[in-house]
Amino acid sequence: MERELKIEYFLPQEIEKRSFEIISEELLKRNIELPTDQEPVTKRVIHTSADFEYAETMAYSEDAPAIARQLLINGADIVTDTNMALAGINKKALARLGGQAHCFMADEDVAQAAEERGFTRAAISMEKARIIEKPVIFAVGNAPTALLQLYRMVEEDQYHPAFIIGVPVGFVNVEASKELIMRTKIPYIVNRGRKGGSNIAAAICNALLYETLKNR
Amino acid sequence: MERELKIEYFLPQEIEKRSFEIISEELLKRNIELPTDQEPVTKRVIHTSADFEYAETMAYSEDAPAIARQLLINGADIVTDTNMALAGINKKALARLGGQAHCFMADEDVAQAAEERGFTRAAISMEKARIIEKPVIFAVGNAPTALLQLYRMVEEDQYHPAFIIGVPVGFVNVEASKELIMRTKIPYIVNRGRKGGSNIAAAICNALLYETLKNR
Repeated sequence: MERELKIEYFLPQEIEKRSFEIISEELLKRNIELPTDQEPVTKRVIHTSADFEYAETMAYSEDAPAIARQLLINGADIVTDTNMALAGINKKALARLGGQAHCFMADEDVAQAAEERGFTRAAISMEKARIIEKPVIFAVGNAPTALLQLYRMVEEDQYHPAFIIGVPVGFVNVEASKELIMRTKIPYIVNRGRKGGSNIAAAICNALLYETLKNR
Repeated sequence: MERELKIEYFLPQEIEKRSFEIISEELLKRNIELPTDQEPVTKRVIHTSADFEYAETMAYSEDAPAIARQLLINGADIVTDTNMALAGINKKALARLGGQAHCFMADEDVAQAAEERGFTRAAISMEKARIIEKPVIFAVGNAPTALLQLYRMVEEDQYHPAFIIGVPVGFVNVEASKELIMRTKIPYIVNRGRKGGSNIAAAICNALLYETLKNR
């Protein structure tokens, strides 16, 4: 006999609320207490992934959420390394604060420079962000080479990102690229280890956007 | 003293190859042997998430990968429940096979019908797929309500999806919605449990596309 399945009925707008309640309950069960300023961000990452490991691996530089919110209030732009993250970022919320989101990955000039220089398009697309004449929050959800390029630009004093969200996912240089970012003076939100992704990058951006709009 | 970080140098096109080698090595270490036809799909999901749990939770109906490849060869379209998954699906690869990818989530008529009927937009956007006059592969990466709607349409004999990729993520009705799909006669690829996501839905579509193009 088939096991009976329990379907709960909620109005559409209640589903997210109930999800966050479940996340809070489970964090409590696991004896995990998130610092107040990090809580909305880490919880939204768990909401996006259903993966509680993030509660233990997310790393924030000092006052990172407040710094990011201040940047967003001042109209900072967001540059990301994938069109998936670009699709996931709430661009209406960002526009209400005067910011714009960009992904240069599919640009013809980026593809050409990447080919010529033997770099990934992700790395070159980070360089291209220098054309933006205001503070930029970088949201890297895919390519560790993007983080490595940002690190190089910072170390060589060529360019200074206002903020780095460093959550590439994968197996080659991913962990090291995140560690390098954590050694710079740039404020950051990073997920240590191999996990991350475009969805995680977008979730972090959105959590910061929602907190900014709520508190302004 | 700071720990020395090891950065490996690879040409851009080598990074993915090396990643899949690492995934194979780790599956071997964990004594996990994936069925041959499922291997490219499950490995790409792990590549996208860096989460080996998927090797244990991915569920395939009989011959699901072969059925999906046949559909793609015949020019099937893909309908997804998020613009993030739409952004992540390799639309050039799909077009080479004569297929198109759609997401109706942002459509005005979908928003309106959702409001009127008290449904989620995701559910209504599944209904809208009926306007497509050829076989449709559904790729649900976000909303369990989309899967519940597909289930209802199948049970009421209103509409029959050609294939369902059921990988919504989250905490409310997610597990039950996947179980229901597994009880239909529709061929499926599902990830049991809470995990999934738009990135996972796109990864499954892309794995199937790449296998189809490789073997045709």
